[in-house]
Amino acid sequence: MGIIVQKFGGSSVADTEKLYNVCKHIIKEYNRSQSVVVVVSAQGKTTDKLISEEKEITENPDLREHDCLVSVGEQITISKLAMCLKEKGYNAVSYTGWQLPIITDSVHCGARIKYIETEKIKKQLEAGNIVIVAGFQGINEIGDITTLGRGGSDTTAVALAASLKADRCDIYTDVDGVYSSDPRIIENVKKLDLVTYDEMLELASLGAKVLHNRCVEIGKNYEVPINVKSTFIDESEGTRVINNKDLESLYITGVAKDDNISRLTIIGLENKIGRTYKVFKLLSENKINVDTIVQSAGEHAVKDISFTVKTNETKKALKIINENLIELGAKEVICCDKLSKISIVGVGIVNNPGVAAKVFEALYENNINMHMISTSEIKISVLVNKKEANLALKAIHDKFY
Amino acid sequence: MGIIVQKFGGSSVADTEKLYNVCKHIIKEYNRSQSVVVVVSAQGKTTDKLISEEKEITENPDLREHDCLVSVGEQITISKLAMCLKEKGYNAVSYTGWQLPIITDSVHCGARIKYIETEKIKKQLEAGNIVIVAGFQGINEIGDITTLGRGGSDTTAVALAASLKADRCDIYTDVDGVYSSDPRIIENVKKLDLVTYDEMLELASLGAKVLHNRCVEIGKNYEVPINVKSTFIDESEGTRVINNKDLESLYITGVAKDDNISRLTIIGLENKIGRTYKVFKLLSENKINVDTIVQSAGEHAVKDISFTVKTNETKKALKIINENLIELGAKEVICCDKLSKISIVGVGIVNNPGVAAKVFEALYENNINMHMISTSEIKISVLVNKKEANLALKAIHDKFY
Repeated sequence: MGIIVQKFGGSSVADTEKLYNVCKHIIKEYNRSQSVVVVVSAQGKTTDKLISEEKEITENPDLREHDCLVSVGEQITISKLAMCLKEKGYNAVSYTGWQLPIITDSVHCGARIKYIETEKIKKQLEAGNIVIVAGFQGINEIGDITTLGRGGSDTTAVALAASLKADRCDIYTDVDGVYSSDPRIIENVKKLDLVTYDEMLELASLGAKVLHNRCVEIGKNYEVPINVKSTFIDESEGTRVINNKDLESLYITGVAKDDNISRLTIIGLENKIGRTYKVFKLLSENKINVDTIVQSAGEHAVKDISFTVKTNETKKALKIINENLIELGAKEVICCDKLSKISIVGVGIVNNPGVAAKVFEALYENNINMHMISTSEIKISVLVNKKEANLALKAIHDKFY
Repeated sequence: MGIIVQKFGGSSVADTEKLYNVCKHIIKEYNRSQSVVVVVSAQGKTTDKLISEEKEITENPDLREHDCLVSVGEQITISKLAMCLKEKGYNAVSYTGWQLPIITDSVHCGARIKYIETEKIKKQLEAGNIVIVAGFQGINEIGDITTLGRGGSDTTAVALAASLKADRCDIYTDVDGVYSSDPRIIENVKKLDLVTYDEMLELASLGAKVLHNRCVEIGKNYEVPINVKSTFIDESEGTRVINNKDLESLYITGVAKDDNISRLTIIGLENKIGRTYKVFKLLSENKINVDTIVQSAGEHAVKDISFTVKTNETKKALKIINENLIELGAKEVICCDKLSKISIVGVGIVNNPGVAAKVFEALYENNINMHMISTSEIKISVLVNKKEANLALKAIHDKFY
């Protein structure tokens, strides 16, 4: 029987009662497979509380010390959960990131896992014990504590599953799977039974907050079957994230929305080699994340180039480009904020040329203007006015479901 | 210039304001000596809170997991304090017990330090940085977190000072030194400028809660000068704990009281070799700590033997002895609880035969009965009724000061 990795997030372990609820899932799996490794996050608001205490001290914390501080959250959870399991009569043993160790690079607050030493885990599993591992944290090569950044515990879980060659990684959360769109906006959302890693990657980057991109990437690279299921609904079937779907599966997976978008357009850029490169080098040097880029066909002496940035980086991006207009060889930059990006995702898109037309039809029928369009093999995104975003989401969703 | 170790307890670092107050002491010493290592406890009630959360889970926690849980308290303090110092413009770097590492034995909740690796600290000091170390915690040889038990942070500080061959270990606390008696009971207590390690050991074991025995032991063994001073009173002179006093010093250091005492007397014990040994072996096997032992001269066929135990262990001790009366060859065991032990401590006692007489005189004048007397080279202890204990303390203190 293979190893099963289970991951429980902060809301699933928020208090003693919930810790004991989590024990039920663990014990059930243990009684079935005998080899269970559990990854947990910090309890409820623990990390938020530590960060607010940190803000009392400084607005600009040293990142090494910050990681030392916030990593205690998971350390609290692992020891408590091990105690709960022992109280229930099951042998459990906890490990922090440094105890295994989980070796990462040195990028504090956003470290990447380089290697997980699994010897201790394997020994404990062989002895019949349940192993509890702190998510979100690791240790770099000089022995400093690191943290993995947002969604870090998911990443720990899938990376552990990959390192242990586990049969499966079950991500327990407060929703019971991945949906075709946001259930808070769309009434008739459909829970997806299956979704591919690629679709999940697109959905995650589009604001479906179920799984973090990095964990899906690892899942994809090491072909770890991931199950997303509910901590609170017993026998929840959840969503399976896998490599390839059967032929019969839906060609559209979901429709997602991101409200945090501004579009910048640089007008009258000289149509010379290297101009586009210069623009994005400048933005990158200033640590501004650019999302979609659309360039008009460059047949003329000048061209326009549009791209999107996150709303909170708009001002900074505008300022930088305006300060460098002459050097960039551009005429002006204009900005269109209060936009939302609606994206439709599915592996079937590339083989179904009618999808784009259907999207545009749905928007046309609802009199919604598109500010930008971009497409990939498995995704079509359109920018619309933020105030029309929910209507657009619903219109597109209804068109396909 | 040599290294200075400073230690700040939980009440000295309880919140952000207090952390910044502690920075003042650190910066002042850093500006003077350039080589400061700081040991801190968990903030205020942090450890108590963790333990009460633990009690929600189980009354009988796994001790390995318990140590993993409670050790987060100091980890929080070290990172916060390092941030505070950075905010003040001083470079500081924090280390947990496992990061140095501080190697201990495997006795969870009461581990003893075997070895402290000081390489990282020395490197940081050479680079001009202030080093912050988590008190109370260490790591055993298989990589599990251990804690040192009560007074653990003091022990960490003095052990570090010994390992670093520091010039001095300053223990900052909420009182401004060691007193000749309990200031809450005696009005005219005298703050001691100097006290020897041996006197401090006796005082600590007698309920003067300023320094824990284990840290004084290490100080004595490695001749680390220890200063006890106030975190909250600037320029507090404090008390110096040293190896030998000048000849002129007071021959009495202090008078202490312990209210947590019961006396058991085993009557009619056969006066044969090995009987006494059997009694205390039995108690030791049952993990009962015996304090003072007094045995009447054994000229007869039977003898009586009295000893004291802590109040909360009285019932257990009585039960065990009663169950084994025949085997022990004794007639009966009687118990006298609600007792207090008053002790007078000073290196001068051995050379001043009048001290004992003065103690007895003070009690006689106040009509206080003594239930047991025991003496050592630097201590005279008497048991009195608990309700007369404060009066006895005052009477003896007044006799000498």
